[in-house]
Amino acid sequence: MSNIETMSVNAIRVLAADAIQKANSGHPGLPLGCASIGYELWAKHMKHNPANPQWANRDRFILSGGHGSALLYSLLHLFGYGNLSKEDLAQFRQLDSLTPGHPEYGHTVGVEATTGPLGAGMGMAVGMAMAEAHLAARFNKEGYDVVDHYTFALGGDGCMMEGISSEAFSLAGTLGLSKLIILYDSNKISIEGDTDIAFTEDVQKRVEAFGFQTLVVEDGNNLEEIGKAIEAAKADKTRPSFITIKTKIGFGCPAKEGKASAHGEPLGVDNVTALKENLQWPSQEPFYVPDEVYAHYKEITDGLAKEEAEWNAMFAKYCEAYPEMKALWDEMHSDVDAQALLENEEFWKFEDKPEATRNLSGMVINRIKDIVPGFIGGAADLAPSTKTYMKDMGDFSKDNYGGRNLHFGVRELAMTAIGNGLMIHGGLRSFVSTFFVFSDYVKPMARLSALMGAPLSFVLTHDSIGVGEDGPTHEPIEQLAMLRAMPNFTVYRPADATETIAAWYYAVTSKKTPTALVLTRQNLPQLAGSSKEALKGGYVIADSTKETPDAILIASGSEVSLAISAKEELAKENIDVRVVSMPSMDVFEQQSKEYKEKVLPIECRKRVAIEALSDFGWGKYVGLDGAYVTMKSFGASAPANLLFEKFGFTTENVVNTVKGIL
Amino acid sequence: MSNIETMSVNAIRVLAADAIQKANSGHPGLPLGCASIGYELWAKHMKHNPANPQWANRDRFILSGGHGSALLYSLLHLFGYGNLSKEDLAQFRQLDSLTPGHPEYGHTVGVEATTGPLGAGMGMAVGMAMAEAHLAARFNKEGYDVVDHYTFALGGDGCMMEGISSEAFSLAGTLGLSKLIILYDSNKISIEGDTDIAFTEDVQKRVEAFGFQTLVVEDGNNLEEIGKAIEAAKADKTRPSFITIKTKIGFGCPAKEGKASAHGEPLGVDNVTALKENLQWPSQEPFYVPDEVYAHYKEITDGLAKEEAEWNAMFAKYCEAYPEMKALWDEMHSDVDAQALLENEEFWKFEDKPEATRNLSGMVINRIKDIVPGFIGGAADLAPSTKTYMKDMGDFSKDNYGGRNLHFGVRELAMTAIGNGLMIHGGLRSFVSTFFVFSDYVKPMARLSALMGAPLSFVLTHDSIGVGEDGPTHEPIEQLAMLRAMPNFTVYRPADATETIAAWYYAVTSKKTPTALVLTRQNLPQLAGSSKEALKGGYVIADSTKETPDAILIASGSEVSLAISAKEELAKENIDVRVVSMPSMDVFEQQSKEYKEKVLPIECRKRVAIEALSDFGWGKYVGLDGAYVTMKSFGASAPANLLFEKFGFTTENVVNTVKGIL
Repeated sequence: MSNIETMSVNAIRVLAADAIQKANSGHPGLPLGCASIGYELWAKHMKHNPANPQWANRDRFILSGGHGSALLYSLLHLFGYGNLSKEDLAQFRQLDSLTPGHPEYGHTVGVEATTGPLGAGMGMAVGMAMAEAHLAARFNKEGYDVVDHYTFALGGDGCMMEGISSEAFSLAGTLGLSKLIILYDSNKISIEGDTDIAFTEDVQKRVEAFGFQTLVVEDGNNLEEIGKAIEAAKADKTRPSFITIKTKIGFGCPAKEGKASAHGEPLGVDNVTALKENLQWPSQEPFYVPDEVYAHYKEITDGLAKEEAEWNAMFAKYCEAYPEMKALWDEMHSDVDAQALLENEEFWKFEDKPEATRNLSGMVINRIKDIVPGFIGGAADLAPSTKTYMKDMGDFSKDNYGGRNLHFGVRELAMTAIGNGLMIHGGLRSFVSTFFVFSDYVKPMARLSALMGAPLSFVLTHDSIGVGEDGPTHEPIEQLAMLRAMPNFTVYRPADATETIAAWYYAVTSKKTPTALVLTRQNLPQLAGSSKEALKGGYVIADSTKETPDAILIASGSEVSLAISAKEELAKENIDVRVVSMPSMDVFEQQSKEYKEKVLPIECRKRVAIEALSDFGWGKYVGLDGAYVTMKSFGASAPANLLFEKFGFTTENVVNTVKGIL
Repeated sequence: MSNIETMSVNAIRVLAADAIQKANSGHPGLPLGCASIGYELWAKHMKHNPANPQWANRDRFILSGGHGSALLYSLLHLFGYGNLSKEDLAQFRQLDSLTPGHPEYGHTVGVEATTGPLGAGMGMAVGMAMAEAHLAARFNKEGYDVVDHYTFALGGDGCMMEGISSEAFSLAGTLGLSKLIILYDSNKISIEGDTDIAFTEDVQKRVEAFGFQTLVVEDGNNLEEIGKAIEAAKADKTRPSFITIKTKIGFGCPAKEGKASAHGEPLGVDNVTALKENLQWPSQEPFYVPDEVYAHYKEITDGLAKEEAEWNAMFAKYCEAYPEMKALWDEMHSDVDAQALLENEEFWKFEDKPEATRNLSGMVINRIKDIVPGFIGGAADLAPSTKTYMKDMGDFSKDNYGGRNLHFGVRELAMTAIGNGLMIHGGLRSFVSTFFVFSDYVKPMARLSALMGAPLSFVLTHDSIGVGEDGPTHEPIEQLAMLRAMPNFTVYRPADATETIAAWYYAVTSKKTPTALVLTRQNLPQLAGSSKEALKGGYVIADSTKETPDAILIASGSEVSLAISAKEELAKENIDVRVVSMPSMDVFEQQSKEYKEKVLPIECRKRVAIEALSDFGWGKYVGLDGAYVTMKSFGASAPANLLFEKFGFTTENVVNTVKGIL
């Protein structure tokens, strides 16, 4: 390693140590241990242009071990991304800074994904590699490899212990994603001590079993060795690659090197001093980086800019040669035209007959696939049940990356991370699908969709005790509350065809908010009063004749028709109620105070919420004077109609509940 | 295979097919494909006594592929468990039957675990094997192997695709759990088609990498071959074993064998007829089993009973030789003495100084460990942060199964399944731990704790934006709502030492309900008004002088002291409010109507909920006239005090919010 390179690597260490020390908070272990990896990769093997972090054909780098954010910020600073300054590094982990505790997508220029929950980055990397393969299959032409980039992910023992990495890697191996390169920071240290206490497996062998090429770098500070491994990874054209790089956590800091204590707390002032001495750093001044180091990085980035320039030239020619591909490219890299879709009569059409909302969703998906060319997705081995198969769009496989139907296998968590990766790669609009009860498995990665503002769509079917015979393990109860409570996440539980189409309209035009569609297994009637008002989240679907109704019934999904039926029964007894359909609490909450007040006038305090799931969260509309027809326990195994009866979802019970509070 | 054995195996198939056909719902693929495995294992290799399903030293069998419940019910019927009758089989998947869609622990005699969510059974099996190893280490004496049994789990491709199986197996390999034997029903078929579309990995190799002995049975109908593999598995005294058994889904049914359609729908009347013809079954009558088959099973079970008799004799001698061990055994197999613990002054002691509730929990855990000898648990590589280490209790490892501190590695999902396995094995009382935000990963298995009525404890620390610098990926917002919404699951978020002790008291004495303790990272003051009333879930911690207060402030955990401080400020302006501490909504909901009305009188409608998490779920107490001081978005990365200020958790903002609704 030449001296300037040594210093350039150590600059990463020193900046990270200083930032963490200044914040008096953070994780120095990874940045010190992986500085050489970061330098070698970014300086010599990654195709990127810091001057244009949005370059479509750049290599992607995901720091799956997000706690090592100081490594990423130091790299972004030294490579000149977004003018991330020393001052920004000095604001590490401070309020409203560009350098938060874990990397945040959309917040700091050059951060490709929000990471922190371990293993998540591995799943997203697989999604990005799938996006690349898919776009390459659709766009590349003889002599024009306009989509041709690698996806790198760096993670440690924690990422490898999390089950999501097995799920994602198993699929990556099946799909032969040869442009996926995983860098495994193997330091043998976990928070509770040596990894041997819980993790003696042969990681290489496991990943080999998934169908990866595996490589080992014995010395995580040997740039040449690291570089050779990365090139060997690139050279394999049929398999993804996994490089185990043996590192020392906290490298360079004599008192901390190789110790669990290096992981998650600042080194301490004295140890930062010792680190700089040990690295023969020319100054103890915080955040000091010699000019020649900056000059060295400048030289590298100047070279990197050329690569994009060459691509731009090629892409210009490509656009000229294939104007229809250029048009497709632009379309796929733009938002869906919301106004046009709103006015598209074909999109909003449906047959007036009882139908399960999962089937209606399947119908809509098969319309969207033609309207939105970047629409791609699939299910966790449940497509025939969740009705998510797109006809004539082909199956994404090793032999057909152009297919738009994805087969995730029984891997809900990785599926969702992959969906996120597909979305944030750019160029695609993705959806994932499973049974609603298994949104439990989906949740950790759905939270990342919400945090990143990645508008992934979730098709979650079999949405209540309507599941029937499969019984309580398969009957969602608390899942609606779980998803509704999440910030920046929209849940729609539509009652019929119009509302299902509206839900999909919302999902596919959403720019920053992921959307879940919660759908029935069983048939539902088409409702006379349903309308595009569903786009407001809640609306009056059947009104009382009085200015202030005797009561308001509020329901969603399969229970809206029940509420309407109860209204009709109550009318016979001269009880005049309003029915509010509430397909989306989240969207309703975003309406004006006036609109909300109009739908749910405060004068009417006799309110009944009807939903075949937990009552949790309905109190804000029901208040202290209302009542609930909801689930108070887990479900049971029996034909669905018997379950609805058993648990009180009958016209009679709703009528009695209303009368009970009048 | 002798003819009677062929018939005994086919009896399983026929009963399963008939049950599913009668229900017109269910999954015949697994029962037909795995009938031989079930027979061979239960008849010749498993130590069990159908006459006493609670025999402590029985081998455990978990059907991880729970959709194949008809296999299990057929076995239970033929082996005479709990007198499960033909009529019960004919009630498969019907309301209130003993044969629900998926096996339910505690509902059907002989069902060792609730399964359905794929992979869960694999995690629970690892937990059971750990329980066995631990109890053996503590109880066995020279010549007295009173704890000495195997744990078997049967699952298919779906179980292997789910990440939880990698997490659990990696730990099982590390721990060398040689009495764990996994039977992998490898049929190459998934719901969306051939497993090759998503799952081409070398499963054997993966599991070998985890440290398992791996074995292959080429013909899943060859009893001898299956038997040999099971014996080879038992013979390995250092490693868990994994037996890949190549089966045909839907075996025996000509039109369905080897097809995805065999998986999850009834065969159809004609195909059931064809199955019986093909198997040369003596009658087409539904649920017909020849007498000689029953006689054969009777002969087997008579033999099985002898094994228990022998053990009983040995155990009696053991109890005589080691009376202190007998006492310990009885204690560990009994509930905690709730009354004694309530009156145990040492247990309820604390120092009057500011302290984080995670530290207080650590203190209590170290009391419980001495009071409850079966108390065992640990964290997902976060014990130093979640304060869950039990001093002087040793670390559970391959070399020390007697250790009571478990190291789960970064594997929250498997951890929770393992915790369930430890609980339902019998003899132990378990807890698991991670950061509260990662309860997202825990959730799918916490749901199984709740469904099974397994009172596992969850120690979930770093419970709000009080996390500070780690930022939004590590700051829970919606997790409280997620857990509170779940049936039969209690959440405690204590405000100080007394409430933390109360929460642990509730957790450790709970008989059928799992409990989560949601704890702060940051210090909290000890509150003058806190008391054992916390055991009621919600109580008045600081009262107004008026009969009907001007307003009620309701808060939990770290926000209770904020509410009290706001009360004091408001008093200066002659606004006289009550403060209600609500450590557990779940427990409060279980109180009498009178008690609840006393704490939250309906006359007072000016109510403010204060909690540094989502407002979701508070509406039921706040009503239509109240207000919220809660989180409306994800958190941020900064020192915690600045975050509390930024997001409005200040006395001033609470005061203004109260005044705003008066």
